[in-house]
Formats: sequence, structure tokens, C-alpha cells
Amino acid sequence: MRELLEAVAAGELSVTEAESKLSGYATTEAGRFDAARETRRGVPEAILCDGKIPGEVATLATTAVETTGRALVTRADDEQIQAVRARLAKEHPDANVQVRERANILVAHAVGFSKPELDATVGVVSAGTSDAIPAGEAVTVAEEMGASTEEIHDVGVASLVRVLDEVETLRDADVLVVAAGREGALPTVIAGLVDTPVIGLPVSNGYGHAGQGKSALLGMLQSCTVLSAVNIDAGFMAGAQAGLIAQAIGSAKE
Amino acid sequence: MRELLEAVAAGELSVTEAESKLSGYATTEAGRFDAARETRRGVPEAILCDGKIPGEVATLATTAVETTGRALVTRADDEQIQAVRARLAKEHPDANVQVRERANILVAHAVGFSKPELDATVGVVSAGTSDAIPAGEAVTVAEEMGASTEEIHDVGVASLVRVLDEVETLRDADVLVVAAGREGALPTVIAGLVDTPVIGLPVSNGYGHAGQGKSALLGMLQSCTVLSAVNIDAGFMAGAQAGLIAQAIGSAKE
Amino acid sequence: MRELLEAVAAGELSVTEAESKLSGYATTEAGRFDAARETRRGVPEAILCDGKIPGEVATLATTAVETTGRALVTRADDEQIQAVRARLAKEHPDANVQVRERANILVAHAVGFSKPELDATVGVVSAGTSDAIPAGEAVTVAEEMGASTEEIHDVGVASLVRVLDEVETLRDADVLVVAAGREGALPTVIAGLVDTPVIGLPVSNGYGHAGQGKSALLGMLQSCTVLSAVNIDAGFMAGAQAGLIAQAIGSAKE
Amino acid sequence: MRELLEAVAAGELSVTEAESKLSGYATTEAGRFDAARETRRGVPEAILCDGKIPGEVATLATTAVETTGRALVTRADDEQIQAVRARLAKEHPDANVQVRERANILVAHAVGFSKPELDATVGVVSAGTSDAIPAGEAVTVAEEMGASTEEIHDVGVASLVRVLDEVETLRDADVLVVAAGREGALPTVIAGLVDTPVIGLPVSNGYGHAGQGKSALLGMLQSCTVLSAVNIDAGFMAGAQAGLIAQAIGSAKE
Amino acid sequence: MRELLEAVAAGELSVTEAESKLSGYATTEAGRFDAARETRRGVPEAILCDGKIPGEVATLATTAVETTGRALVTRADDEQIQAVRARLAKEHPDANVQVRERANILVAHAVGFSKPELDATVGVVSAGTSDAIPAGEAVTVAEEMGASTEEIHDVGVASLVRVLDEVETLRDADVLVVAAGREGALPTVIAGLVDTPVIGLPVSNGYGHAGQGKSALLGMLQSCTVLSAVNIDAGFMAGAQAGLIAQAIGSAKE
Amino acid sequence: MRELLEAVAAGELSVTEAESKLSGYATTEAGRFDAARETRRGVPEAILCDGKIPGEVATLATTAVETTGRALVTRADDEQIQAVRARLAKEHPDANVQVRERANILVAHAVGFSKPELDATVGVVSAGTSDAIPAGEAVTVAEEMGASTEEIHDVGVASLVRVLDEVETLRDADVLVVAAGREGALPTVIAGLVDTPVIGLPVSNGYGHAGQGKSALLGMLQSCTVLSAVNIDAGFMAGAQAGLIAQAIGSAKE
Amino acid sequence: MRELLEAVAAGELSVTEAESKLSGYATTEAGRFDAARETRRGVPEAILCDGKIPGEVATLATTAVETTGRALVTRADDEQIQAVRARLAKEHPDANVQVRERANILVAHAVGFSKPELDATVGVVSAGTSDAIPAGEAVTVAEEMGASTEEIHDVGVASLVRVLDEVETLRDADVLVVAAGREGALPTVIAGLVDTPVIGLPVSNGYGHAGQGKSALLGMLQSCTVLSAVNIDAGFMAGAQAGLIAQAIGSAKE
Amino acid sequence: MRELLEAVAAGELSVTEAESKLSGYATTEAGRFDAARETRRGVPEAILCDGKIPGEVATLATTAVETTGRALVTRADDEQIQAVRARLAKEHPDANVQVRERANILVAHAVGFSKPELDATVGVVSAGTSDAIPAGEAVTVAEEMGASTEEIHDVGVASLVRVLDEVETLRDADVLVVAAGREGALPTVIAGLVDTPVIGLPVSNGYGHAGQGKSALLGMLQSCTVLSAVNIDAGFMAGAQAGLIAQAIGSAKE
Repeated sequence: MRELLEAVAAGELSVTEAESKLSGYATTEAGRFDAARETRRGVPEAILCDGKIPGEVATLATTAVETTGRALVTRADDEQIQAVRARLAKEHPDANVQVRERANILVAHAVGFSKPELDATVGVVSAGTSDAIPAGEAVTVAEEMGASTEEIHDVGVASLVRVLDEVETLRDADVLVVAAGREGALPTVIAGLVDTPVIGLPVSNGYGHAGQGKSALLGMLQSCTVLSAVNIDAGFMAGAQAGLIAQAIGSAKE
Repeated sequence: MRELLEAVAAGELSVTEAESKLSGYATTEAGRFDAARETRRGVPEAILCDGKIPGEVATLATTAVETTGRALVTRADDEQIQAVRARLAKEHPDANVQVRERANILVAHAVGFSKPELDATVGVVSAGTSDAIPAGEAVTVAEEMGASTEEIHDVGVASLVRVLDEVETLRDADVLVVAAGREGALPTVIAGLVDTPVIGLPVSNGYGHAGQGKSALLGMLQSCTVLSAVNIDAGFMAGAQAGLIAQAIGSAKE
Repeated sequence: MRELLEAVAAGELSVTEAESKLSGYATTEAGRFDAARETRRGVPEAILCDGKIPGEVATLATTAVETTGRALVTRADDEQIQAVRARLAKEHPDANVQVRERANILVAHAVGFSKPELDATVGVVSAGTSDAIPAGEAVTVAEEMGASTEEIHDVGVASLVRVLDEVETLRDADVLVVAAGREGALPTVIAGLVDTPVIGLPVSNGYGHAGQGKSALLGMLQSCTVLSAVNIDAGFMAGAQAGLIAQAIGSAKE
Repeated sequence: MRELLEAVAAGELSVTEAESKLSGYATTEAGRFDAARETRRGVPEAILCDGKIPGEVATLATTAVETTGRALVTRADDEQIQAVRARLAKEHPDANVQVRERANILVAHAVGFSKPELDATVGVVSAGTSDAIPAGEAVTVAEEMGASTEEIHDVGVASLVRVLDEVETLRDADVLVVAAGREGALPTVIAGLVDTPVIGLPVSNGYGHAGQGKSALLGMLQSCTVLSAVNIDAGFMAGAQAGLIAQAIGSAKE
Repeated sequence: MRELLEAVAAGELSVTEAESKLSGYATTEAGRFDAARETRRGVPEAILCDGKIPGEVATLATTAVETTGRALVTRADDEQIQAVRARLAKEHPDANVQVRERANILVAHAVGFSKPELDATVGVVSAGTSDAIPAGEAVTVAEEMGASTEEIHDVGVASLVRVLDEVETLRDADVLVVAAGREGALPTVIAGLVDTPVIGLPVSNGYGHAGQGKSALLGMLQSCTVLSAVNIDAGFMAGAQAGLIAQAIGSAKE
Repeated sequence: MRELLEAVAAGELSVTEAESKLSGYATTEAGRFDAARETRRGVPEAILCDGKIPGEVATLATTAVETTGRALVTRADDEQIQAVRARLAKEHPDANVQVRERANILVAHAVGFSKPELDATVGVVSAGTSDAIPAGEAVTVAEEMGASTEEIHDVGVASLVRVLDEVETLRDADVLVVAAGREGALPTVIAGLVDTPVIGLPVSNGYGHAGQGKSALLGMLQSCTVLSAVNIDAGFMAGAQAGLIAQAIGSAKE
Repeated sequence: MRELLEAVAAGELSVTEAESKLSGYATTEAGRFDAARETRRGVPEAILCDGKIPGEVATLATTAVETTGRALVTRADDEQIQAVRARLAKEHPDANVQVRERANILVAHAVGFSKPELDATVGVVSAGTSDAIPAGEAVTVAEEMGASTEEIHDVGVASLVRVLDEVETLRDADVLVVAAGREGALPTVIAGLVDTPVIGLPVSNGYGHAGQGKSALLGMLQSCTVLSAVNIDAGFMAGAQAGLIAQAIGSAKE
Repeated sequence: MRELLEAVAAGELSVTEAESKLSGYATTEAGRFDAARETRRGVPEAILCDGKIPGEVATLATTAVETTGRALVTRADDEQIQAVRARLAKEHPDANVQVRERANILVAHAVGFSKPELDATVGVVSAGTSDAIPAGEAVTVAEEMGASTEEIHDVGVASLVRVLDEVETLRDADVLVVAAGREGALPTVIAGLVDTPVIGLPVSNGYGHAGQGKSALLGMLQSCTVLSAVNIDAGFMAGAQAGLIAQAIGSAKE
């Protein structure tokens, strides 16, 4: 740090460059924290609806569209989605609004906003409808980061043949997010079949002792093959991590 | 119960029959608790060595040979095994003593003892050497109950092809004990391939959070297919439960 | 596997046979995953209502009737049951629909469907009304798999005489599912009285520390006699495991 | 309190009486904390050996004999017992020293010390040798408090007839301490047979998930009959609580 | 047991006596399980309202009044209480119905029913209104068992003087139930001041980590003085255990 | 931050000042991390011996004396203490070395080192010998930070009078560290008697469920009065936090 | 204690003084427990609304205003706040009522009530809106105890620069309360930058495994720098502890 | 799968190709499971020494060198390392053997073995010596997979400036493994500064409640920024996952 400051003192380094090196982002007059963070890492800031009233969600989404050109709203119920739609219809009537219904996600793009394009594919594997929300979050954030995505549904460890049927699709992806509830063994089984990074995404189904995703998470942490994991239902986190890997791969191809 | 006692009072039922109906076993002059229990259910009483000094183990084993014609000694270290061998060599020199080394089990049969024979096969599946003790316990107790056993080694969920290679052997067994550590998914995968009862046997390997078999047990309890489970490292229990099922099948064939 | 594939290459084995050997089921043009799984293992696929809206349940139940001749709907509330009844009345008016009220289960059979018949009895023991749902699930799935069932109610460890009164009935069953909440000791006590396999089914009653079935599950895992267990309230799983054992016994008798 | 102090100020109450009322014990010149506590409640102070070196144990035991006429040393290994014996032999050669071997307890009485005598019986039930230490602690402290004790061994829930065989002995006790490991169901079963208070004493045997007494404790807390419990292996606590109940009963008889 | 049965066979023992010795109660034509249990141990059977609809509670309460002369209904909400009142008003218009409002308990006595009278006092200590339900359960069941009760309110460890103010009242009771939430230290503090048995009753207040009574329960199990504990909010259990002790004391006085 | 950097660029702020403002410490040629941290916050860096071989401890202690004038060595066994003494005797023969035996702490001061002096007192309360190590750590670090300390021993909630006897001493301290094991209620009781900040220090005694300090920690977190807590056995942390408060008070007096 | 009582007996000490010394507060004719406690320690008694009906809250708040001149109502919903406002408007129309909306706190001061004034500042740091309730509780209670407060918002470990921007403000406070959810690292990071006491306040956000504040609490207990912690969401406790430290500092300045 | 098998039947696909497509690897006469797995995914098979005797480790290492050209031995103590060295010296005297002492890792390369080379860098960050073993495992496996590695030591959240000093190095890596114990916040802080994937590696230091890495793991799962995690001390897993990402990046560059 001392060298950096000496360089500033000596006029060898601009203040902006120094600030950027020190803190990871450059603030401007109009700058905002969220915008800066999104710019810095390439991961869109999500607006998590849990515990927010519809009006709060609508305000946050509108602000996001204004400052970053995009809003990514997760875990939204119907009422929250309507509030966002209504507000945007009024304040940003030209914005493009997409809702991924079963995943409870809304994405809005301001006119002129274009998301990045990466030459890399994120595969997202899920066992069924109970995984729809976290898997959908993973798909959406990966796409918003610019990755191509490939969704593979209805795959479970109790029916190996369904897994084997998808081996080529699984191998074609550059990185995989594998959602699983109950005993959470699917990421392990799939990681044994591919040579790409696998991110385990435990899902909160299952009941009784260690239900609601706990056994799935623990199983992924104890996996006998190579993978890393995120927390239960953390679909956004898994998709973003996959997106960062896709970014790295895409950049390497350029 | 009242009818039963009235029948005894009326002389319509012998005391022995009444006792047997009420309590599940008949005591004799020479009878003993352990012998009775073994007779009643067909499951040999095991002598669990944990926390016992060699002399105690040797005494218990000798008593077992004397009263039931057989001793089944589990979790025995070298010193305990030597103590049993020495004592039996002195007091029952003709007894047949077998040690299953990697499973830390000793079985002794008195001269003239013959274990039952069942027309049923118990398959015991394990992933590797770390499962040797509980898997070996399961094999031994199932054999002592009279079942044929089939051991299938080196099978794990991270290498599906090894599992598929064994499908026919797995299907040939009448009941399966499937040992697994780490994430404990093997019983689920196998249960998806066979139409026979599967008993999950979690094994205490794995480290870190939920290690030492905990994740394996929880995964079996959360299985998305049909199976039942026993406690961590409870190889004797799993083998005995499989043995009871084999008894039922074997009896049905007669 | 290699041998299998070589046989296919040599024309010695049909594709269908090979596929069946490899994966455990044969797909047909009209075939479906659920139907195949049911055929393979003999365990009917259940439609678990938790978290589904009535329309979804009705659709799944109708599909099940169409593809497998049967629907087994569990944890259904009144509204869900009415939705299934209404849909089936419209699309399959001749189907036979039975509801086991206290167990929240609905079973529908298409015209001409006949469930298997096994010469084996599954006994299901419960302590009282709080066990009605999981015990009822166990009874229903065992019956749908073809077993005879015997229900034994109002039995608990705090009143030994009630247990002893039922000893003969307990011994007459080929396999027992024993439901218990609170401290979960009933499977242990009963397993000490019979020579047949016992499956412990912990039930989510009890309050305070380790309530809601946790203590019951742990007690079954720590049992000092031989039994295996399923997860809390997993009545379907316990009944299906008992059904698999009954299948094995029934087959042996043929 | 104000009234009390006003009475002291007015000379209506002696200082000693006031102190006794306020704090529960009266100090004397020679008085000591431990002695006072023992006097007050009638429960002997135990010297718990865990983590103490032999010399410390010997010093504490000698002090106890000097101040209260008695030493009660628990969880003592051979070396600690020898140290106490040697020290007492030197400093209090006439003291009466008793060791309850399997329970790892030593009791020393000074010449002239006589323990109280209560007309009440504490029954202590245990399943086997693994319960010897906590059960022995319970017996010893109850006896030192003056109760008669009755020990009932080799009783377990997997063999109901052994329990029933002891019903009359169980009913003859005024209060029961019931030790149990594994699933911890024995106190529940026994409490269903008697009309006296039962104190559950969980014992640290059992392995795997919820082993080492945890399942036993939880099962006692979830009991479907009436009992109270102490912590795992807290034999001294269970025996002392039974002793307090015996004191109350014995006093009532006088 | 054999002796017993031989005595029956020899006509030396009546069937009823034998049954009573074996099982702990005698059935009659009109006899019922609940009634027998209540008679045997002296603890009234409680009807726990949790999860029952008002009609079920009313039916159970009416049956209890008919068979035992008394109904004890716990955890009843207003609707459940009204249902019981209405049903009893119709079917047993002369029954005496009492509701302890803050404790959510209803007690009904049939005409002519008289509860036992014991010469012994149960003290029930609580910290405040949050303990009202479990403390009230303890008081009610102890009274129904015939004990006198003394309630001591608004006592907590953060204000020692309130505890000291009540020392004499605390010492006058024959047995104490001490309810406490949060850190659960009150039973320990009080047990240090009295020479009577103390039963700790953890209460489900407190929030955050180990809230809802868990810390209180654990603290009682770890108490550095002598006491036994029941599960969280198990006021009925604590009061019944205190009632059993009071029975023993009361009987000793006769 | 931007303003700060602009000031550096403009020459209005020296590099050292800027660095200090940004990061909290200034590095010098000879500067070291440990020294800087100690200087910055006033809390001496401790050398925790757990898992280190004696030679490593000796090297670290010598380095500490050289760079900061002082070494504070915690959780040291005899061998580690001897290694430090020997090394210091050789390399810093004039250093003043003090060992607080029962607390397993060694403090060494270089010649000329003088610790700060604060006009504030830290009271450290403990129940007995089992608290000696963490309580001794708290005392030592508070003293090394310059506070006066007052140690109050043999105080426990089961003997209120001992607590009341010390009220004046407790009130004289400016801040209190209260160590407690088992149920951990002592900090709560004391905090109800004083008007100064109390820091709860849970101690790892107690056995069975929630033993080894867990119940004590949870009880402090659930306290019904005002206090904050540190982790189990974190005597250094508690003493340092008290030292920081004493620093603030001492500075305010200047 | 004896000396104290002897002094009372001798007339050397007034009853009031003695009582005060013994118990920590002096009761008067009109005195009340809550008032006394507030007087003694300087921490206002809070009325926690959880589980109370609006009428109960209103009654308690009115009583608090009457006896202590102030009411501090926490975790109040809109209905509860309206009830308090309405009751006070009727019974104490001149009282000053303030509501801190996002923190769900109401403070009422009677006419003529003046809170203390301390020359010390409590800084309260929070990450965002999800921390508003506990952080607001901490601010309010510290202010009511007389401290100045400084609130620092929108600070989180994922954006270090925001933390660094606030270093001077953080260092200006005399004591800091740092709220944090998720991984709870903010108190650690801030404690590394200041030389004042830091109190960690874990907040119940975060989902999945160890969510709802658990991970935050554990992280604070495991902090690698010096801090103490309170329970999850215990904003009142954290603020009151900070207030006690501010009291000590403020008093030292006088 | 059907298409695949039909192609085999039609002679359009060779058996080997089919097998490879189905199972993920091709077996040969001399082929072995470990070798195949290593080939397939590019992750070297590690020999985990925990619980193995030196002779077993030596045998496994020798076999690994023979079949894959390389042995990677982890968690090896001195005796195990000597055994491997001795065996290899005898059987493969020309093998190149490297030991990374503080990480307890041994790597042996057969003559002629050359590990892959990737144009990608894995950064491994650790806080200090307590992280040496897992961090060293991560470095070694990443290097063996062909990545360049950059180690960054002595970085912790309590000293932000050390983190900031390394920002450029951190940003230069293509993927980061960040080891942390105690509260485990370092990966979060670093992930907030870089735009590359970060893998959290919790380390088993820390004591008391949630010590031994538990709090660190939970904190990483609750991170408020984007990262994925592996189990406690799973350095091999973290390094291999980073290696897979590096493989993907390196391949993309080709």
C-alpha cells in the first residue's frame, strides 16, 4: 500500500487509479454502490423479495433499471411481480420485462441495455419440479452474465439410465450446476462422468430428520468425487459462480 | 391375557406353553437368558469387545460356546482375539475357531454345532477397505444365521460403470446390505436397480462437517427410493436384519 | 458391461434385452418413466401432495391411472381429494376410487386393473390416532403391492400388557412395521418378542427437545435388538420396504 | 427481607437466626462451605476425580473426612484410589474405607461417624455391566444419605419377561432410579408398572448417531409416561435426588 | 414368572391376582385402558388438545368423565373449551367444570367424584406470565392427585432478593416444581436453599440461539446442585412427578 | 477515501498519515505485523501453544520479546514453559519471566519494558479450580493491558450467600469478567447486583448432554439480564475485552 | 454477611442500608420491582411485545410511565403501537411519545422526565435494512441510558471500501455495537481497525444451513480479534451493554 | 441409450466407443479403475493416509506410480513418508520423489512421467501456519493438474491492509482457493475484490462452540458475496476443483 500512496504523492498515479486499485471500484458523482459492485465483478445485483412488501420491491427494481440498466428480482410472488410490472410500465414503459414463472424470477432490461455474451455454456441439471426455483435462479443469473445455458431436467440417482442418457449433453457444457434434494447424490454421480467443474446446489425438499435440504448439503460436502457446493436453495449463488467460471473461460477464448 | 391364565387355571394349558406364549421363550433348569434369546429369534448373540479387557472377552466367549455352541465376537483387537483363542484352546480344544481378520470378528463353533442352512442369499455391497469392518460383520452374522452370502466390493457412486457391471449379481441376491460412507448414496443407486429389499449401512468414514458416517446415515434416511437403514457402523444389525429376511424367505421355500 | 455390448454387437442379444439388463427397465414408444419404475420394482409410484395445488394433484393422478392403471395419492387434504375425485369422475368415470380418510390417502384403480396378490402378511402396529397417517400409508402401499395386512392399534410401551395381548397376532405376520412417536421404544419391545423382520417407523409427535419424531428415530437407530428404520413419518417408505420383503416371501412360496 | 432486618435491628431476632433465614446456612468459626452445604441439604459433597491428579484427590478426601466425617470420591481410577487409601492410612488410620470397585467409588468414614438412617428404600435398576458406574454412584449416594437400597440388574426392554419377573421388587421400593443406555426406554416401561416416582438415568453406551447416551436422554425426556431425568451418566445426581425423596418419605414416617 | 404360573396352575393364585401381578392392572367387563392406568398409578390421564378438533376433545372429555369420574383437558384454546363445556352441559349437566384460564386447562368432575387428599404440599415456582401454562399444568395435576399446592410467582435469578424473600415458603413445601425459561438457572438457585426434592421445568421462552426453552433445559441438566428435570413445557409431567412424590410422602404419614 | 487520496495527491497529507488513516497502522522499516497490531489496539498478541512444539513456542516468544518487549504465552504445558525459559535465559538473560502456574500462562518482559498503567479495575470472578485456566488468562491479559485486577474465587449460584458476601467487591470493579461452567448462571446473577458491564466467560466443565461449556455459553446468550459473552474457555478474549473497557475508562479519567 | 447483620443488630447500620447492601436495591412503600431494577442498574426495563395482545402492552406501558416516568416498548407491530398511543393519550395526554418506525420501538416520556446525559458516544453499525430492528433497538436503549449515538449504515464486508470510508467515524465512538447477519464478519473487520470495545450483534437474516443468524453468531464467537457478542437479534441487550460501558466512561469523565 | 445400443447392434458403433460413451471410461486388459478415473477427469487419485499403516501406504503409492506414473500421498506422517520413500527407492529407484513437509504431502513421478501444463494460474490464500496442510494440498493438486500456482500467506480479515496489499496478486490469478479458519470471512472479503471464481476452504482451527472449522464452513455457506465451498480441511478437493476450472480456462486458450 505504501508504494501505491508514494506513487500518488509523486504524481505517478492518478487518484482514480489508486482508488480503483485499493478498493476495487471507482466512485463517480452519480455513482452508486450496487452499480459499482455489478460492474466490478460482472455479477448482477439481485433483489431478493423475501420479507419485502411489493412497493419496496418495485422501488428497488426501478432503481436497478435506472442505475444498471437491468433489474433481477428473485423469490417474487405474484403480487410482487405485479407491483414491479406496474411501476416499470409507468416509469420505464419501454423496458423489456421477462418473468420465469416457475422460478419466481423477473428480469427487466432498459431500452438499449445489452447483456454480455460469453462463448461458454453453463449446464443446469435438476431432478424435477421441486427444484424449479433454485435451478431457475441459476439459469437466469448465468444467462444474465452472458453464458449460454443448457437445462437438463428429470434426472435422479434412483434411475441411472436417465443420467446416462444425458452424458453427452452434460459433457458438452463448460461448467455444471447440479441441483438435488433428498440425499443430494446427483452432483457426485454426474461429477464422476464429466471432466468439467461441477457446482452442487442442495434443494430444500425432503422431510423428517435432516430434511429441507440439510442432508443434500451435507452429502455434497462429503462427496467422494470433486465438486464444490453452495448453501441450500442458493440458486443465484450457484449460477453466479458458474457464470464467473464461464466468464473466465469465455475471456480465455478471446 | 386373561383367557390364557384362565386356561392355565383350568389345566387346559401347560405352564410351559403359557410362559412361552406370554414371554416369548421357555426357561429350563439349565437355561440362560442369552441362549433363550438366540433360540427365540435365530439371531446369534454377539460379544461386542469395545471397552472390555481381553480376559472378560475370553470368559464371555467361552460361556457362549458352552451355552449356545457358538461364540460370535465383534470389534476384537489382536490382543482380545489371542485371549479368546488361548482360553478356548484350553477349555474347548476341539472347537472350530475362525477369524475374519479385516472385519475384527471371531467365530467359534463347539464340536457338533451346526449352524442353520437357509435357501436364501444375502448380498453385501461395500465401497472399499474402509467399509471392511461393518461389511464383514454383516456377512458373518448372515452366514451364522444360515444364509448364503455374496460379497461385492469396490463399488461406488462416483463410478457408475462398476455398479452396472454388478447388476446381475445384485439382482441374484434375495436381500442386500449396502454399506457406504461419505455421502451414502450407494444404497439409493442400487435400490433403483433391483426389486429386492435393500438395507442401508452407513459407515463412519468421511471427515469434516457431518463426517464419520453422519452424512451417510442422513442420506439413507432421505433416500428418494425405497430402503431402510441401520445406525452408523451397525454391521451386525444390518446383517442380522438381512438374516431375518433370509430366514423368512428360506422358510417360505420349505 | 463389455460382454454385454459384445453380445449386442454379435447379434446374440436384442437391444431391448441389453437395455433392460443395463438400466433396469425397457422403454417403449408410449412408455413413461414412472410406469417403468413401478414395473421394475413393484412399488407403486406415490403422488405426494405436499406443496402441490389441487389441479396439479388431479393431473398427476389422472396420468398415473392412464399409464399404470392406478394412482396412489398421499398426504392429501380435502380439497386435493375433491379435485382428484372430480377429475377422475370426468375422465375415468369407471375408475374405482377409495379414500382412507384418517391417513389422507386416495387410491384409484382403472377398470380392469388388478393389483398383485402375495401370500404374505404385513403387520402394521401403531400406538394411537397420532400415528394414523404414517401407519395408514404403510398399510395402503403394502396392500397395493399385494400383501395381506393386519393392523394392530393402541399399543404402547407404557402398558406392557397391551403388547403381550397381541403377541400371537404379531407373530403371525411375516414382517412388521411398527410406528411409534415420543421415545420410539415400541419397535424394540416388539422385536424382542417375534422372530420376523421389524421395520421401525418414527412418528412426528412429541414436543420440546427432540420432539416431532427425532427422539423416536434416534431411539430406533440405537435399538438394543435387531431392526431397521426409515425416516420420520415415512409411512410410505416403511410400507414399501415391508412390501418388498412380502414380495420376496410370497415369491418363495410359489 | 425488610421485616427480617427490622427484627434484627429491634433485637427480636438473633444474628445467627437471621443469617440462617437469609442464606440457608449458619457459619461458625470452624465452619466451612462444603460442610455447611452438606449439612443443609443432607447430600454429601462428592469429590469428582475427573481431571485431578492423585495427590489432589487425596488432599480433598482427607479434608472431607476432617470436616464432615466422610469422604465420597467418584470416578476414581486405581491410582487415585491408592493415593486416597495411602493418605488416609497415614492421617486417619482408623477411618473406615470402602471401595465399590466396578463403580469407581470410594467412601471413607471417620471413626465415630454414623450416616443417617431413613425408613425408605431406593431401588436402582440397571441393564448390565455397562451401567455399573452410574448405577453404582446412585446406590452409594442414596445409601450415604441413609436410604436402604435395592439393586436390580440385567433388566432390558428387549426381554420383557425379565422386567415382569421383577415387578414385585420394583413395587416394593419407595423411589426408583432406572439406568438405561441405547434407546433409554427402560424407565418408561418400568414407570408404567409402578406407582412410585421414577428417575431416569441415561447411560453413555451406544454408538453411531445419537450414541453415548444422547438417544437415551432424549427418550427419557420424551417419555409417554411420568418420570423426570438427569443428565447422561449423572449417577450421583440421580441417587441424590432419590435420596432427597427418601428423606422426605422417611421424615414423614417419623 | 414360572412360579407365578405354577401357582395359577395349582389353584393357589386366582387369575385376577395373577393378571394383576403380571401386568399391573386388572381388566373388567366394563374396564377401559385409560381408567386402569389412572387407577394404577394415581396420575390422571390428560387429554392433550394439540392437533385435535373441538369435537374430538369433547368426546374424549366426556368419555373420561364417564369412565374415571374426571376429565383433565390441557392446552385447550377457547373453542375447544367451549366444545367441552357444551357437550358436558348436555350429557353430564351436574358435572363440576373448572377452567384455569391462563393455563389453558379445564377440569371436570362428575357428581360424586372426590379427588384424593394427601397430607403433602407441592410448591410451584414461576418467573412470570410466560410460564403460566406449564406452571398451571403442574399445579392442576398435583392438585388433582390430592396434593396441596403453593404457587410462588415472579421469582427470577436476576433479582436475588425476590428469591430470598420466599425462602420460608419454599422450605415449607414438601417438593418443588421450579419453572424457568431463558437460561433456566432458577431451579439450581432454589435447590441450593432447600432440603427437599426440586424438579426443573424448562419453559419455551427466550429467542435466538438455543431459545424456546433449549438453553433452560440444558442448564437444568448441567445443574451444579441436585435436581431432576422434565422436557420443555412439560408442566403436566413435572406436576405429576411432584404428585407421585407427594403421594409417597402422604402415604408415609398415614 | 477519495478525499484522502486527493489530499495525498495535493501534498496536503503525508503518505504515512494517509496510510495510517486508511489501514489503522503505520509500517516502518523495522516494523512488523504483530507489533503494529499490538500498538494499534493496545491488546498484546498472545502465543497460543495448542498444537505447537516447544521449539516453535520458544522461537515465537523470543521474537515477541524482541519486537514488542513482551511475550504472552498461553495454554503452555510444562515442557513448553521450560523451552521458553531456556531460550530466553540464553538470548535475553535479563528478561523478567513470570509464570502463572494454574493458568498455564507465561509472561516475559524485556529489560526496560514497562506495561501501561490504567486507573481502572477489572474484576475476574470464578467458581473454583476448574475455571483456573480461562480466569487466569483473563486476569493476565487485563493486567498486561494496564488494568488493576481483583480476583474473586469460589463463587457459585448454588450458594447464594457466597455471592452476596462479595457484593461490595464486585461493585468496586469497573468491569467484571465472570467465568462459569455447568449451567453458566453466575454472570446473570452477578449482573443483577452491579451497575457495571459484565462479560460472561463460559468454561468447559460439565459432562453429558451440552457439557464442556456448551450449556454455559447458551445460558449466557439467553441471560435475562444485560451482559455480553465470549466463546467457551476464551479467557484471553474476555480479559482483553475487559481491558479495552478499562482503557476507555482509564483514558476518560485522564 | 455476618458482620453486616451484627452491625444492624448493634444499631450501627440502618435497615435500609443493610438491605441495599445485601440485595442491591431499596424498596419503599410505593416502590416496585421494575422501577427498582431500572434505578439500580440504569438500564430501562423494556416491554417486549412478542406474544402479547395490544391491551396487555398498553397496560404495561402505562404502568411503566407511571412508575419510572418512561416506557420503552420493543418489537411492537402497528396494532400494538396504536394501542399504546391510545391508552397514553387518554391517561397521560402530556407524555411525549416517539416511535422509531423501522425498529418497531416506541418510547414514551412522562412530563418532567429527563433521561440521563452521558459524555460518551455509542456507535451502532449496520449493513442495511435487514438489520434495522436490532440496530434500532441498540440505538434507542443507548440513547435512553444517556449516551450520544452515531449510526453508520450500509457497511458490509463484501465492500471493504465502504468500511474504510467510515474509519474515522468508527474511531470517534467510545464503544461500538456492530450488527451483522449472514457470515457475521463485520464486527471482526471493524474491531481490527479501532481501539475501542466492540460488541457483536448477530442478525437473523440468511437462509439455508445455519441461516437466521446462527452463522453470524458463531462467527462472532470464533472471531480472530477481540470482541464480545450477544444473542441473535438481541439489539436491546447489545445497546444496553454499550450503554453500561458508556456510563462507566461518562462517569470517569466527571 | 436406446439409440446407442441400436448403433452397436447395427455395427455402426464399436463396442469400445459405446462403452466409453456409456460409462465414461474404456477398460483395457491391463486397465485399472484408478488409472481410468484419473485419465477421465484429469484429477490425480490421492492416497489419503488417515488410518493406514505405513506398509499399506507404500504399497498403494507404488501401485499408483506403476499404473499412472505418479503417486500423490496426502496427510502422511513421517513414518508413512519414510515407508513410501524406502519402497520406491527399492522398486522405482529412478522415480522423482518430492515432499511438501508442512503440508504432509508426498508426490512421486516415475521416470518419463510429465504432468500436464496449463496456461492458467490458481491462487491459494492462507492466513498462517494453521492452514498449512489444507492449503498445501490445494497447491499440490493444482500443480499436479498442470496449473501454475501462486501462494499468498499471512492474510486475515482482522488486518485489512494485508489483504489490500495483495489485491493485484489476487486479481492476477485465474481462480482462487481461499483457506480460512475461525469465522471464515476471508473468502468473502477477497471475493468482493476480484472478478474471478473463489473457492472457500474452511480450516479446522478455532475452539469452543462451532470450533474446528464449523463456523468457518457455515460462514462461507452464508457468504454475502459469490463463492462456493468445500468441506472442512478438504484442501485436496478445493485444489482439484480449482484445477478443473484452470483446465477449462487453459483449454479455452489453446
